[in-house]
Formats: sequence, structure tokens, C-alpha cells
Amino acid sequence: MPERCGQYTITLSSSPTILGYAAVGGKKEGEGPLGKQFDRIFEDTHLGEDTWEKAESALQREALTAAMNKTGLSVSQVQVLFAGDLLNQNTASTFGLREMGIPLLGQFGACSTMGQTMAMAALFVDSGAADLCGAVTSSHFCTAERQFRYPLEYGGQRTPTSQWTATASGAVVVGHGGKGVRVTAVCVGRVQDLGVTDANNMGAAMAPAAADTLSRFFEDTATRPKDYDLIATGDLGLVGSRLCRELIAKKGYTLGENYTDCGLLLFDRASQDVHAGGSGCGCSAAVLCCHILPAMERGELRRVLFAPTGALMSPTSSQQGESIPGICHAVLLECAE
Amino acid sequence: MPERCGQYTITLSSSPTILGYAAVGGKKEGEGPLGKQFDRIFEDTHLGEDTWEKAESALQREALTAAMNKTGLSVSQVQVLFAGDLLNQNTASTFGLREMGIPLLGQFGACSTMGQTMAMAALFVDSGAADLCGAVTSSHFCTAERQFRYPLEYGGQRTPTSQWTATASGAVVVGHGGKGVRVTAVCVGRVQDLGVTDANNMGAAMAPAAADTLSRFFEDTATRPKDYDLIATGDLGLVGSRLCRELIAKKGYTLGENYTDCGLLLFDRASQDVHAGGSGCGCSAAVLCCHILPAMERGELRRVLFAPTGALMSPTSSQQGESIPGICHAVLLECAE
Repeated sequence: MPERCGQYTITLSSSPTILGYAAVGGKKEGEGPLGKQFDRIFEDTHLGEDTWEKAESALQREALTAAMNKTGLSVSQVQVLFAGDLLNQNTASTFGLREMGIPLLGQFGACSTMGQTMAMAALFVDSGAADLCGAVTSSHFCTAERQFRYPLEYGGQRTPTSQWTATASGAVVVGHGGKGVRVTAVCVGRVQDLGVTDANNMGAAMAPAAADTLSRFFEDTATRPKDYDLIATGDLGLVGSRLCRELIAKKGYTLGENYTDCGLLLFDRASQDVHAGGSGCGCSAAVLCCHILPAMERGELRRVLFAPTGALMSPTSSQQGESIPGICHAVLLECAE
Repeated sequence: MPERCGQYTITLSSSPTILGYAAVGGKKEGEGPLGKQFDRIFEDTHLGEDTWEKAESALQREALTAAMNKTGLSVSQVQVLFAGDLLNQNTASTFGLREMGIPLLGQFGACSTMGQTMAMAALFVDSGAADLCGAVTSSHFCTAERQFRYPLEYGGQRTPTSQWTATASGAVVVGHGGKGVRVTAVCVGRVQDLGVTDANNMGAAMAPAAADTLSRFFEDTATRPKDYDLIATGDLGLVGSRLCRELIAKKGYTLGENYTDCGLLLFDRASQDVHAGGSGCGCSAAVLCCHILPAMERGELRRVLFAPTGALMSPTSSQQGESIPGICHAVLLECAE
């Protein structure tokens, strides 16, 4: 049963379990440091579809199907699906999942969506609202570039602070029992906006949200950063993760060697020309599902605070002179004893 | 505590209560049949802001603030806020609510968003995940027209099946106790797509989703349409609500005089030039908060099935030849005994 813990955190006492998970990615993600850990890599960024948007929808289908296959359960047994993405009107999710016939609650948290959808799935299972839930999200470099920035054909220059949107999807299936990783607590993010207006520096825009959510979670649970085997924000990249360390230090918490950012893990910054790192809903989702959860299952990590971040802007809001609000949802993952 | 009831429905046994609610609208909504029932009407469609998008954000702030004022509680006591809208990347919600400092979970259900956000708020309260939650959504004629259709200055012709996006916002605050209306059950929608491609006939695109959700709810709860004082879909308008009657009849249920659609209530179709009726997230939200909930508090309606519908398309998906998927989330509202 969900219970309040401190002012902001919710603990899940029945320990809803991740019964299955999977990550799929594109060619560039396959060439990165985590490439061999993906369930499937698609060399064709179109996935055989006639548009990139349809390809992104296919990524979600592939990830969820692969995650379901590991559970030994059928898709029709999933009672509620939580899904979202960066495309206008969440269409990667809607069109990707519409044939499955599962009740769907569309979520929007920009690049924090994997945290949000997994939190919702775990809360539904813990509360008895459902016995089996799915959580899935995606991003695609080509759909994001043309929607948020420039046509790809234009070949716009990228600034050193910019990040590279991952072509990837991650999915988890949450239910009762089993020996998988447990979701034991959730801290819902508050919108934080320190006035950053540079759409090529999302890391800086989102860092205050990460510092806010992490520090509220530490305070509510009376823990310190060193109490976790891994604290992973995403996707702050190089610039944002440094800022996150600074901002959280001002709140009295020191992030040590156990802190990293999903945007720093997905690509090799030295060789892959991604500037400040990876980004997009699919980045933290894929790092969670191809790297963090497997390490937990192998017993290498036992207690992980997964805290993906999102930039809640649109091109219209930026054109109207608005700053970029950030959000960060934290989910505590623990190995079964 | 939430419990499964049948294959799709979730019952809420602690009866989370609507402690406060409010609706605000624009000039045209003020001139309609429900005009005098709004908490506030803004004659200036800009609400003093310099863009329509910022005006829509202001609508959400105004509705939530008015709803909170009726509870006697302060905004800082709200533990989780569920909000969404039609704008790209949910920016009406994010920018409208960012100053409030409340943990936010962005929702996307297009025009079904009031059902989705209210369902989530009630589920969180019923499960113990939160003691006090808010749910809010909005739409604005001018932001929707220019995002989904044509620049307003173009003066595009409207077809007879088209609907008029409401400039309005509705908000509810859900908590424990009190004498207000109870949220007693929720049925999450499945995506339904019968292949309608006409973006000027959203009612037809969404009607199958309404028929699907309503019939699943009747089956799960072993009830018939006549067991409700009111069944209100939204926003199917004239075309869609007729289709909904036909489609649900094929499933063995007859919708009688107690069935209506929020898109038929907000405007006077004979005099207000709205063609097939109202639409937009704000339409069903405002009809709920200025018309249905007050009638329940007066004891004129005791058992209402509120079932708003959404069209989950984007201009990009339509340009790529996709059909328009629909969804409908149903929420059962009952007066305290």
C-alpha cells in the first residue's frame, strides 16, 4: 500500500516488482558503450516504416513486446499501460500502442517520462488498482530534431552545451511477486525554473529540478547520497550533471562517485560527437533497461535512485520568450532481500 | 482502497471526495446556455497576457485557485497535481502551474483529460498515495485553431461536422471526508480507431472509444444505462453522440433521455455558430465544474457517469496519412448518502 513518507515522498509497502524490461535502440546507440547490452539494435533508423515518427512508434512496440516476452505473460494480461514521449500530442505512444488494446493513460514528463510512467505503474500495482501494468517511453533523434529544432537537411550547427537525442525506447512491466527488482518509493517532481532560455542547454535548465527532487527525497527518507549504490539522473549530460552537483551541495548533500547521469552513459562523448551527452525520453529509459536493471539483477547494484529529468518547453513557448521549466521524478529501486 | 471490479473497472472504496471545483471561461462561453453558471467569465480572450498560449495558462491558474478557495485549504497543502491540455508539450499546464510549487504529473488524454486527471487524483487519495490532490485542464479556441488547423487570420471555412474548441478551464480538488460528491469508480480507456481521417469530424473519430468504455463499464459493474441519473460523454458533439448511441446499441445497451454530451451543453448550436457543438479539454471540464457538480450538490443528480473523450492525433500524424485514434475515460460520481 502506498504511504506518505515525509512531505513529498510515497513509499510502496507491497514492493511491486519489475517482472520484465527491455531496451531497443538505433545504430548510433548500438555503437556506444552500452551497445551490446540492448535487447535489439535497429541499423535502419526508419525500422522499415515510411516516416521517422512511425519508426519511433515501432520502437515503443518493440520494447514493450520484448519486455512482455521476458515475463512469460501475454500482452492481454496487462491491465493499464502508462506511456508518453516527446512528440506533439504523445503520438509515438498512441500510434505505437493502439493495436494492443490495453487501457492507456498517456503521461507527459518530457525526458523524465520513464520515471513517471514506472512510478505510476508501481503505484497502481501497490494500491490494488491493477495487478499488472506496463510503462514505456521513447525518443528518436530525427523526430525530435525536426520538431524542436531545425529540419535535418538544414545541417544546423550544434553548440558545445547541446545534447544528442537518443533513438531508443525502454519498457518495464510491473506486477506482484517474482525475484525481480522492487520499486519501493517515489518522489514526484515540482516544476523548477531558474530562467534558462537557451534551448541548446537543456542540462542547465533541468539541473535545478534534479537537485530539488533529490534533496527532498533525502530529507523525507532521512538518507544521504552515500546510502545508495547508484544515483542516476537523466538526461542532464556533462553541463547539467556538474550543475546538479553544485546545486545539491548548496542544500547540504554531496554527490560522490556513486552519482552519474544517463546522458553520460549512453554515448562515448570522446568519439561519438554528441557534445554534452545523450538526451530524450529514450535515453534514461534505455540506460535503465539495458544497463541499470541488469546490473541490479546480477547483484552488482542493490539500491538505486533513478531520477530522470525533463524540460517542459515547446518551440512555441521559447519563441514567445519563455524560459525552460524543468522537472525530475525520482524512483527508488531495490533488489529483493 | 482501489479494487478491481470485472475486467477493466477500478472501484474506490474509501470514496474520495470532491472538496472544491471551479470553471472559468471566455466571452463566447459566457454567452452560452451555461454562461451564468461559470465561476468567472473573461471578456478579454487574452486575459491581459500578450499571447493566447499565456492566456490559456492563466485560465488553468484561475480555475485551480477558485477551486482551492472553496475548500478553505491552501494551495501548499495539495500534494500532487494532475494536469494536461491540448498544446504541444502540455505547456498550458506547465507554465500555468509552475509558480505554485506543487508536485506535478503531466497527463495527456486530449479532450478526455478532465476524466483522466480527476481519476488519477481520486486514485491517489483512495490509495493513500496522497491526502489532497488537484486535477485541472484547459483549452483555448485561438491556441487550438492555430496549432491544429489554420492561422485565425486565414478565416478558413468550417464544415458542418466540425466542433468549436472551448476557451475554458475546469479544476477539481479531491481529498477525504466532507459532504461533497464522491468518486466511486474509474474505467480507463483503450485506444479505438475505426479509420476516420477527417480532422473536421472528431466526434465520429471518438464515438467508438466512448461506446467501448461505457459498455465495458456497464458489463464490469452489472449495470444498465438507466441506472444512472446522467451519462455525459464529451466532446462528441451532435454527430459523435448520435454515433455513440448507435454503436452502443450494437453492444446491447440503449442510451435513453439520461444521456447527453458536454459538447451539446456548452453552446447554443442554433444561435452560436458552433456547428456540431463544443470541444476541447476545457469543454467537458467546464461543463462538469459549472453544471454537473453543482446539480449533484443540489441533489438534482445523484449518480453520474462522466465519460469525456479525446482524439489522440497531431497535425503531423494526419499529414502522414494516419487515421484519428480516440480514447474515453469514465469516472463514476455519486452523492454522499
